[in-house]
Amino acid sequence: MLHRNLIDKHITTWVDELPKGGLYAPMAYLMGLPAKRVRPALVLMACELFGGRADDALDEALGIELFHNFTLMHDDIMDAAPLRRGQPTVHEKWNVNTAILSGDAMLVKAYQLMGKRPEVSALFSSYALNVCEGQQLDMDFEQRDDVNATEYMAMIRLKTAVLLACSLRVGAAIAGASQEDSDRIGAFGEHIGLAFQLRDDLLDAFGDPAKTGKQQGGDLRAGKKTFLLIRGLERERQEGNTTLLDELRKEKGDRNVERMSTTIEALGVRDEMQATIFDHHQNAINIMKLIAVSEERKKGLSALATSWMDRAF
Amino acid sequence: MLHRNLIDKHITTWVDELPKGGLYAPMAYLMGLPAKRVRPALVLMACELFGGRADDALDEALGIELFHNFTLMHDDIMDAAPLRRGQPTVHEKWNVNTAILSGDAMLVKAYQLMGKRPEVSALFSSYALNVCEGQQLDMDFEQRDDVNATEYMAMIRLKTAVLLACSLRVGAAIAGASQEDSDRIGAFGEHIGLAFQLRDDLLDAFGDPAKTGKQQGGDLRAGKKTFLLIRGLERERQEGNTTLLDELRKEKGDRNVERMSTTIEALGVRDEMQATIFDHHQNAINIMKLIAVSEERKKGLSALATSWMDRAF
Repeated sequence: MLHRNLIDKHITTWVDELPKGGLYAPMAYLMGLPAKRVRPALVLMACELFGGRADDALDEALGIELFHNFTLMHDDIMDAAPLRRGQPTVHEKWNVNTAILSGDAMLVKAYQLMGKRPEVSALFSSYALNVCEGQQLDMDFEQRDDVNATEYMAMIRLKTAVLLACSLRVGAAIAGASQEDSDRIGAFGEHIGLAFQLRDDLLDAFGDPAKTGKQQGGDLRAGKKTFLLIRGLERERQEGNTTLLDELRKEKGDRNVERMSTTIEALGVRDEMQATIFDHHQNAINIMKLIAVSEERKKGLSALATSWMDRAF
Repeated sequence: MLHRNLIDKHITTWVDELPKGGLYAPMAYLMGLPAKRVRPALVLMACELFGGRADDALDEALGIELFHNFTLMHDDIMDAAPLRRGQPTVHEKWNVNTAILSGDAMLVKAYQLMGKRPEVSALFSSYALNVCEGQQLDMDFEQRDDVNATEYMAMIRLKTAVLLACSLRVGAAIAGASQEDSDRIGAFGEHIGLAFQLRDDLLDAFGDPAKTGKQQGGDLRAGKKTFLLIRGLERERQEGNTTLLDELRKEKGDRNVERMSTTIEALGVRDEMQATIFDHHQNAINIMKLIAVSEERKKGLSALATSWMDRAF
């Protein structure tokens, strides 16, 4: 069976077996919304890369997806976000207290699946703390005007990239990979995770709305401090200009998003980001070469890395 | 070394080794406030009861205490509580978002300590879900006027008693106790937990403020639906009276707490609760008799159960 089908079936069974109502209803709701299921796919792919069977990693694949959705449930409270995957967030549909408590229980449910092997549990806990630390940095950055590109990269590494590394290392652990190979697949995961997030930032300003399904320049209009804006502000300051800064000083509704993205491109930030994404992709591919399994087995993850580098959506 | 000293030393070391600032500062703050450390003591006592060494259960004892404090951090947000252990709650001292996130990370830190043995991890997860379910019921009850005594008992069982059962079963698991003995010590824990909570409810109305350190009748004044009030309302309704109901219909500041507690006593609720507490104590003692270890080893836990039954503070 295809990974995607295996995962969807496992999630559906899990949701069906949940107690009805109470703090379980928001979990069933959030897990039932359409999603890409990237992280559980990585668990299964890494397990097979090292000679394991996807079936043996399904519980942990689901555990990682539950953890990811738990972070979304709590992050959405902290960000006061009204929508998630196009639907009302849990704290909007129910209330904040229910979203806190249901999220807590969801983290426990994740551990029920991650706790079967002590080495998997330890790996998972260590990365889960990183994700919390990343969210803390993200919130701290909202209060600051002087976040630099290095700090931003450290934040997205913790908040996004490490959970992809975690997914791969959990799959590797289930297949019994060596410590060295576990480290390698983890590093591979961080590089493709950073490339993925930077590509996300780039698509906001330069993507085709027909393909991304998002309003072009939404982050720019909101003044969200992504790599694009942080680096653009750094560069224009070096050049003695204030075009971006002037736009940011306006009310959100008055910002000229077209002017902002043109400025960012003229400052060379688009090219710089493309180059950085390419570098992370190259690093990922080079690390994959060091893993001593057949090229045939590497095909899936290598193709995924490449598709993430130049995805248009 | 005494259990209390072992636990305090282990907590102090853990706090000292935490990263400074960020989401770790609220954990250090909450874990640093003076507390009875009942749950970790139960872990160590159960471990020794079944022939294990207290030292071998210290990490899990700390893990349970971290979990307990994580629930306090999040419950205090949900209850909008300003004080905890006489000091500002985390969401008051920092903010709600920090209390959510730091609590999440605290639950992960608890699992770092509970995840070393799969059987301990599974036990812990199952009880942790019960605690979340109990908190959900507690919040649901706040919105209802028709909670009966049976429902209240089910709620305090989940919210309070099961974590004592969990502590004891975790200690038993580390000592390698049999499944039967694990079930027995768990049942013992639930009974002493229920006795403890009912005693707490009773002391609010009839305790000596000089000993409890709390304002007499604080729960009654707040109209908090404890066993005392729920059962009192049931009984006066059966008798066709409305003394308690009339008091509850007044503003909090206008309630005659003296009149409420006298009414509850006249309705026989004080005696009924004393009898219920005594029953739970007897059940606990009877279960302890079934555990096939020397009487010498049982002394500590038996004495604790008795002291909880008739504690005055």
